[in-house]
Amino acid sequence: MDKTVVTGFRIVPEFAQGLVRDLRVRWALEEAGRPYDVELVDFGERHSAGYRRKNPFGMVPAFEADGHGLFESGAIVHRIAEGSDALLPADPHGRAETLTWMFAALNTVEPPVDALSVMDLQHQGEQWAMLRRPAVEEKVKARLAVLSDRLDGRDYLLGRFTAADVLMTTVLRLIRHTGLVAEFPALNAYLKRCEARPAFQKALAEQMADFARNEPVAA
Amino acid sequence: MDKTVVTGFRIVPEFAQGLVRDLRVRWALEEAGRPYDVELVDFGERHSAGYRRKNPFGMVPAFEADGHGLFESGAIVHRIAEGSDALLPADPHGRAETLTWMFAALNTVEPPVDALSVMDLQHQGEQWAMLRRPAVEEKVKARLAVLSDRLDGRDYLLGRFTAADVLMTTVLRLIRHTGLVAEFPALNAYLKRCEARPAFQKALAEQMADFARNEPVAA
Repeated sequence: MDKTVVTGFRIVPEFAQGLVRDLRVRWALEEAGRPYDVELVDFGERHSAGYRRKNPFGMVPAFEADGHGLFESGAIVHRIAEGSDALLPADPHGRAETLTWMFAALNTVEPPVDALSVMDLQHQGEQWAMLRRPAVEEKVKARLAVLSDRLDGRDYLLGRFTAADVLMTTVLRLIRHTGLVAEFPALNAYLKRCEARPAFQKALAEQMADFARNEPVAA
Repeated sequence: MDKTVVTGFRIVPEFAQGLVRDLRVRWALEEAGRPYDVELVDFGERHSAGYRRKNPFGMVPAFEADGHGLFESGAIVHRIAEGSDALLPADPHGRAETLTWMFAALNTVEPPVDALSVMDLQHQGEQWAMLRRPAVEEKVKARLAVLSDRLDGRDYLLGRFTAADVLMTTVLRLIRHTGLVAEFPALNAYLKRCEARPAFQKALAEQMADFARNEPVAA
């Protein structure tokens, strides 16, 4: 019953590879030094009754540990972090501050960042996207400026590495196709610092290897 | 040092009254039966250096308790919930499931719901909004359908009332100007059930009374 299982997609289009949200969970597990299995679901099966029992919204990741299922990458990463000093401070205030920056990543930074990513990667050239893009880019830059101020003089959001950095890094990667993060030197250095961590590199390599294994064979 | 302080806006336009996110925190404190003070900040002062020390993103709510400041409504509500059986089950799996539905509210349901709300309330009649609206409404309806399935046969997201219902209710209120929630009977009944709670009614009445007190005097 103590098997840990992460569910991701079998294959996604190239623009999305390295961005799919099970990367957050794989990375957290690697930081925690906790072994896990990966289950892959077909993108077309995400709304099947069977998969919706794992994640009712038909998204990835889904997670299973100690005989219980969970979904929502933020909640899964938090659950993993609760079992590991590598991802969460021990004192109550440090834990609350970590959760603050986890919600900041997913509820304050990700919405405009994801909106920009969806516009550019899935709706490029559509009239509404061209009309709306400048305002969304301004909003993204305002959020990045706050983050960059926070990271000026800090290696990580809380000084030490935590679960909040797992989420924030994977959010910032959603706009890797733009030069926006690079406009903020402290933030750019932070992103590179997080991505250089061996646990991130291992998680990313394994996610990419799963996609490569499942690439349709060219005719 | 054990004073609890919630910060909200002194006054906001009528379309936003009853939707501002300090309502989440006031409601959670009422459910927990915990006394608190309210501090009001001018909307125009939200990006001042002074206020940014409380919330670096220049948003509300900000929160102070036990001599520590916090921001992000999800993290604040979680911190309050940790101190109250009224908002969080005692067992570790119940706590993880509550956090799952808290993240579902703020990272899966709120982004499309907020996008629709911003379109309708702040960009009505703009061309990009007219072009994009049907797709966003479809996304919102898909998320509401999942929620309604979840609530079919349950009074609350986890069966009993939790912090997740505080967040989900206030997210669903963002589209009160549409008839979308009413299209899903189980979800509609849930929203009415949550809004009927005395703690919600008290928190809402006090937030609205603060706005009324600070209404500019007509010339």
